[in-house]
Amino acid sequence: MIRVLITGGTFDKEYDELQGRLYFKDTHLPEMLRLGRCRVPVAVETVMLMDSLHMTDGDRQRIADRSRNSPESLIVITHGTDTMVETAAALAAAVPVKTIVLTGAMVPYAFGSSDGLFNLGSAISFVQTLPPGVYIAMNGTHFEWHNVQKNRETGVFELIR
Amino acid sequence: MIRVLITGGTFDKEYDELQGRLYFKDTHLPEMLRLGRCRVPVAVETVMLMDSLHMTDGDRQRIADRSRNSPESLIVITHGTDTMVETAAALAAAVPVKTIVLTGAMVPYAFGSSDGLFNLGSAISFVQTLPPGVYIAMNGTHFEWHNVQKNRETGVFELIR
Amino acid sequence: MIRVLITGGTFDKEYDELQGRLYFKDTHLPEMLRLGRCRVPVAVETVMLMDSLHMTDGDRQRIADRSRNSPESLIVITHGTDTMVETAAALAAAVPVKTIVLTGAMVPYAFGSSDGLFNLGSAISFVQTLPPGVYIAMNGTHFEWHNVQKNRETGVFELIR
Amino acid sequence: MIRVLITGGTFDKEYDELQGRLYFKDTHLPEMLRLGRCRVPVAVETVMLMDSLHMTDGDRQRIADRSRNSPESLIVITHGTDTMVETAAALAAAVPVKTIVLTGAMVPYAFGSSDGLFNLGSAISFVQTLPPGVYIAMNGTHFEWHNVQKNRETGVFELIR
Repeated sequence: MIRVLITGGTFDKEYDELQGRLYFKDTHLPEMLRLGRCRVPVAVETVMLMDSLHMTDGDRQRIADRSRNSPESLIVITHGTDTMVETAAALAAAVPVKTIVLTGAMVPYAFGSSDGLFNLGSAISFVQTLPPGVYIAMNGTHFEWHNVQKNRETGVFELIR
Repeated sequence: MIRVLITGGTFDKEYDELQGRLYFKDTHLPEMLRLGRCRVPVAVETVMLMDSLHMTDGDRQRIADRSRNSPESLIVITHGTDTMVETAAALAAAVPVKTIVLTGAMVPYAFGSSDGLFNLGSAISFVQTLPPGVYIAMNGTHFEWHNVQKNRETGVFELIR
Repeated sequence: MIRVLITGGTFDKEYDELQGRLYFKDTHLPEMLRLGRCRVPVAVETVMLMDSLHMTDGDRQRIADRSRNSPESLIVITHGTDTMVETAAALAAAVPVKTIVLTGAMVPYAFGSSDGLFNLGSAISFVQTLPPGVYIAMNGTHFEWHNVQKNRETGVFELIR
Repeated sequence: MIRVLITGGTFDKEYDELQGRLYFKDTHLPEMLRLGRCRVPVAVETVMLMDSLHMTDGDRQRIADRSRNSPESLIVITHGTDTMVETAAALAAAVPVKTIVLTGAMVPYAFGSSDGLFNLGSAISFVQTLPPGVYIAMNGTHFEWHNVQKNRETGVFELIR
């Protein structure tokens, strides 16, 4: 059994017809798992729905608490890419002996051109095969939490080295 | 570097407007990897484009040859689901010491409701983390080649047990 | 108020995951009208769901009966393209003083690349502005029933002239 | 022959992966006409790409000039919904004896859930059948320019009456 914790991020942004802007309404995860015809038992839990630029230490604490206290030892977290690395570090400090994979999207799932479904398939797979630890999985690759950064110019995650 | 071998299957079926039926035109893999913004180096090679129900032993031999002779040791194969298990067995007999992941789709990628992108993200991830061997990856799960069958009634892959 | 009569055709073909072929399950019309945020009052009625190549004179009779007996004088009919012209002729003979627009699609709505939504928007508009008569509306154009044929080689409707 | 003038609006908003916001890159009109397999001869011309809230009198003047000076007497204009009524009034004052249909979308075309393709099919059809004048066509309905307003609360165009 895999626990999927929803925290928001580009993944779940929706278009507000009246205001003409992006916002959060509901998570698309259940629909995405249905589309992927996912056969792994998955428990989906929405912890929050927010832009990761607005996350506080308290928010990260809540995510860490839910990761530690959930009965599953395999955890996928959907998260905005801007501060995914910071949350990964907070999880590494607070949650021992679980395999945690953070993932996200460059383009909202509601857009036709989203990378979300590819990334979700990837995260669901990495979490079942990687040893315990905290990882970031984006665009077919995975990184250990302490050795990755988001390149602000290209938008791509890369090794710190 | 991952080698992706294309063999056809539901994945790549396209709609023929004039005849009103499904057929093969070209593989959608490059477009899917672009959509997933895949950052792993991938070499895509079309071995054939066919319905797996029509595959002969000779066809499976060609797939095994391309798997064995490609310089990469990580190989993803897109394949029709109907005889994916038979091809996996042929590969296990013919290709030692490589990690080979076969994947496919229940619904063509060209349909809005396809599981293809999810499965591709999954296969690209499993192939990087599983030990050498031949596997089938569908819908978030993976199976060793000798312990899986397709349930014809539900359309789902399951353990033989 | 516009009456929309569903008869099947490419429009409503769906993908059968187990058999790997196209079939009819349900009409997509209500979903399409919702997507188009259609504000014209519309009554949707499924008369049949069939490939127009299999339509009999009796089937055309039922479509004509429903067109004549419905309280609305504006009628849109979704229909397979292969015998759309024959049904249009049957309607012209049997239903006086209504504006009837037949439309269809070259690619099923369930495919990402469908022309269905464009054609539906077009038919809904033509039916409100054309004088009474029977018309075929496809791909932005409209034809009077007695002056149109489907070109089997190109798949396109054209004037007989 | 129909002239399609592009001015921007929700229709053509695209997602900026790096900034996580909506912006204009290019018009989607040619792709939409291809998807709709539009058979009416159409000349597409990008006059500007802007949010209609930012349009000045000078911008409306340019749109009116292009409408008056184009050789075609049938004109479709894609436009943001917020000030579509103002531009329609400017056109009514400046362009005599042409049929002009303004249309737009509540959701960007790049989103899966867009009403854009439906509205485009509708506008292309209304412009061929309505008498000369300036109209707004949205969501299956059409309004004369002097008798329509956008309801800011519901986002819907409605008669003034």
